[in-house]
Order: sequence, then structure tokens, then C-alpha cells
Amino acid sequence: MLGHRLEVSDIILIIFNLRQSPLIVMLTVLPISRQNKITFMLMFSRSRVFSRSICNLQTKMVKYLGQQEAIDIDVELFNEYKYSVDQLMELAGLSCATAIAKEYSPEKLNNRLILICCGPGNNGGDGLVCARHLKLFNYSPVVYYPKRTDKPLYINLTFQCESMNIPLLSCLPDGCKIENEYGLIVDALFGFSFKPPVRLDFVPIIDLLLSTKVPIASIDIPSGWNIEQGEPEGGGIKPEMLISLTAPKLCAQKFKGKFHYLGGRFVPPKLQEKYNLNLPEYPGTECCVLLK
Amino acid sequence: MLGHRLEVSDIILIIFNLRQSPLIVMLTVLPISRQNKITFMLMFSRSRVFSRSICNLQTKMVKYLGQQEAIDIDVELFNEYKYSVDQLMELAGLSCATAIAKEYSPEKLNNRLILICCGPGNNGGDGLVCARHLKLFNYSPVVYYPKRTDKPLYINLTFQCESMNIPLLSCLPDGCKIENEYGLIVDALFGFSFKPPVRLDFVPIIDLLLSTKVPIASIDIPSGWNIEQGEPEGGGIKPEMLISLTAPKLCAQKFKGKFHYLGGRFVPPKLQEKYNLNLPEYPGTECCVLLK
Repeated sequence: MLGHRLEVSDIILIIFNLRQSPLIVMLTVLPISRQNKITFMLMFSRSRVFSRSICNLQTKMVKYLGQQEAIDIDVELFNEYKYSVDQLMELAGLSCATAIAKEYSPEKLNNRLILICCGPGNNGGDGLVCARHLKLFNYSPVVYYPKRTDKPLYINLTFQCESMNIPLLSCLPDGCKIENEYGLIVDALFGFSFKPPVRLDFVPIIDLLLSTKVPIASIDIPSGWNIEQGEPEGGGIKPEMLISLTAPKLCAQKFKGKFHYLGGRFVPPKLQEKYNLNLPEYPGTECCVLLK
Repeated sequence: MLGHRLEVSDIILIIFNLRQSPLIVMLTVLPISRQNKITFMLMFSRSRVFSRSICNLQTKMVKYLGQQEAIDIDVELFNEYKYSVDQLMELAGLSCATAIAKEYSPEKLNNRLILICCGPGNNGGDGLVCARHLKLFNYSPVVYYPKRTDKPLYINLTFQCESMNIPLLSCLPDGCKIENEYGLIVDALFGFSFKPPVRLDFVPIIDLLLSTKVPIASIDIPSGWNIEQGEPEGGGIKPEMLISLTAPKLCAQKFKGKFHYLGGRFVPPKLQEKYNLNLPEYPGTECCVLLK
């Protein structure tokens, strides 16, 4: 019944509302479409905008990946799609630096330093690339990289930081120095292949992240968290920002910080479909997108 | 004399004008500083803004590189700074796709195809990366890559395009088809190591670029041009857009098209200084900057 009375202006209004707050309008629209399903669908079938909105409604929830699925996608990117680690790490690190610059302007940081804590694996590599791009964006990054990886890519990434005059600390600054001199800490310690507990070597740096008042931006995973369950029993680090890469992992559902970004705009559409990633649209040519 | 009469408000006004139109104010300021050099310099010596403006005045013209200098910088990036080709090509190709998206919106192209013509060297590799990012930006690129390079990086870049459902043409479409179906041609044939004449294999594609009415965006060098002298005798291709990478080459001074961008935001400051590149500031986190 209501379906027959809908005018073009109503359709535009519904589409507009649907884009503004899809869930609320969904509740209003569904009873109508149940009663007048055919009429309703015919009325809207010529509208590409509407069919896209409907499509978004059905599939709009981004998928949160379990640990094994995250590992499988990573392996597939390298083995099936023939990407090199260099390529994807460069794009991942760039999107982290960009997301950070969007939320932490030099003025907001009072031009203070940014401490980038790098772990021994790919997450640490993302951190090294992120540090280099932050330097090119006129920030003052400082790298703490306690367990260096003895592979050419990591040796070169470290060298690139050094040759950009980014200081590489040999030991962790004390808490007082960090509170006074640093405006942000980037947590690039552990990625999606982490399994607890934290190795003894990294306990001091995790302790520092647990106690600091300086805001933390975690790359892909808040370090020390369980990839699927989230914070460890007894409490984990509480980043203010999380930058998920490729697709968010399950633990990101437990993230309560201010800014959740997605970066790593390189996932081939076929791979997105295979794993039903339902990634959000990146705006324009942006390399990161705000999820919340 | 005049120097003694300058007040703080005058200084602010001069600095402001200097930042708005440095050359015009330079003419006014110079006679004062010649007559009252010491007084004048003392008055301004505490102003960081002013010294930056003066510095910009002296060094603001971006440097246009000769062929050997462009080759030297490239070699240095790989050998001294330890970048991999994968890394820098990814950033270069991304900046090309971004610059193209800034000037040729899907609406401006009437959603028509983009033909990416790739040569056998690094310029062709930049084109393959550019094609992949354009696809991720929701364009419809089509690659023409007549002389493929038998190195793993190029084989993988080609595979990545194919796995993104980017068509790879086995032969060049005829002129009529191009005029009707394509909105833009990306010229990624020859880079800064090109020496004329054009090899016979590439004469048909250069002929097409010479005769087409479809706008052309050239990556780094308008193909067929002399890297230092510009257009060959008898006339060369006339791209509407030029995207210089790392730093513009001498021939870019002869470019008369509408849009000249600089991309490849990865040059370490030390290297910029060594070669006096005087690169412009990239805005914010942008990966390309409009030069004219």
C-alpha cells in the first residue's frame, strides 16, 4: 500500500536517509517491502544509487579476521598474487604514517617527538617504513628497535631510517623522559602472527606502554593482545589509535580507543571476494579510511 | 636610513608580502639592505620566518636535471640509500595514479577507458603500478605492453595487473577505437635513460600518440623527446599532463601542456641537498604536488 504512494521525492529522501543512518531507516523500510515486496523492488530497480545502498546494507559490515584467516590472506598475497614484501610493506607503512598525520597534527603534538617501537617481524618493518614517511611529513620520529632482524629488507629499511637522520635508540628512554619529550608512541611490536605470552625481551617495553600517559597508535594489533580475544587477562595496553592493515582482526572489535583506521589499500578485489572481506570504500585516492 | 625607521608592524608586513609575492618585494627590499646592510640584518636576524623566506627566495626554483644527473641520482638511491626497485616503483606509480585522478575525474573521462602504454624499462614498470592503483581508484585501465621485460619484478607486476582483471592488449587498438572508447592515454614508454631515435618496434605507438586527440599523461618524460633538449626536430608528442618523478628533467622546461606534477616523494633530504634539487614542499601527506 505504502509502496504505491511513494513519489520520486520520497525515494530521494529514503536514499538520503539510508546513506546517513542505514540501520534506523532499515527498520522503517523492511515492513513496507515485506507487504509490497514486488511493487517496492520494481519501483527502485532502476536506481543504481539505491541498489548500491541496498547492497551496502546487506554486506556493509567489514569482516574481522581470525588469526588463521589473516595468515592465509597474507600468504596468498605473496604466493598467489606475486606481491613482494617490499611493495606491500611500503604501502602499509605509508598508510600508517598518513593515518597518524590525520589525527595527530604537529600542533597537536606540540612538535614533540614520536617514538616508534619496532618488533622483530613484519609489524616492526611496517613501523620502520612508517617512521621514514613521518620524517618526510616533517615529524620528528625516533626509532627503538631492540631485536633487529638479520634479513636484507630489514637491514635496508633500518639503513634508510638512519640515512634520513632518524635517531635509532640503543636503549629505551625512561618513563619520565618519554612523558616530557614525546607526543605519541607508535606500537609496531607484534602483528597478527603473535601468540602470547610476550617474550621476556619485550616485557620492559610492554610495561612502558602499559604505564605511559602518552597516546599510543598501534599498527594492526595492540601489542600483547590476543589476536582474536583482545586484551589479555589482567589488562593490556590501551592504544588511542588502531591502524588495521588489509582488514581488521577480531581483537579490533574490543578496541575502545578514539580512532580506528584501515590502511593497506592493495587487496585485489578477487581476494576481497574470496574471503568476504567487505572492505569499506576508501575515499578518493586516500590510502587509509576511518572506520570509527 | 630606512632600516632605522622600520617598526615591528613593518617587519610583519614585509614578511607577509614576501610570502605572498617574494620577487616583487625583493626589488623593494634589496636597495634598503644595500644601504643599511648591517642594521637591516640585525633587525631581522631573530626572525626564523624571515630567514626561511630569504632562504626560499635564494633556492626556490626547482632544479631541472640533465640526463647524467638523473641517472646518478637513481643509482645513488639504489646503491647508497639501499632502496629496492619494488619500493620506489610502488611509490612512483602510486603518485602517477594520484596525479591523474586529481585532474581527470571519472566524470571528466565520461567513465571511458584509460590506455596505459608501457615500455620495456623502469618507465613501463611505473606504468604497470600506476594501472593497478588506477583500478583500485575505480577507473578502467587497459594495458598495452608490447615488449615485456623478462625480470621477476616485471613478470610479477604484469601478473598483478592481470589478477586485477586489467586487460592486457596483445595489439594496439586502431585510432578510431581509441578516439571513441578511451578518455586518456598514459605514456609510460621511455624514461630518463632514453636516447633517440625511437626503436622501430615502438614507431607505431609513437605515431598513434602523435596523431591522437585523446589527452596524454606522460610519466617522467614525454616519450620520444630528448631528455635535455625537449621535442625532437619535426615535432614530438604533446602531452596534456606531465608527471615528473624524483625531480623534473631538463626537457620539462619545454613542456607546454596544462598540468605539470611532481611525484615520487621519497628523496632523502641529504640527497636533495647534495644535488641542490630544491624540491617544492609536498602539501600535507600528499604523494604528488602541482608544479604548474
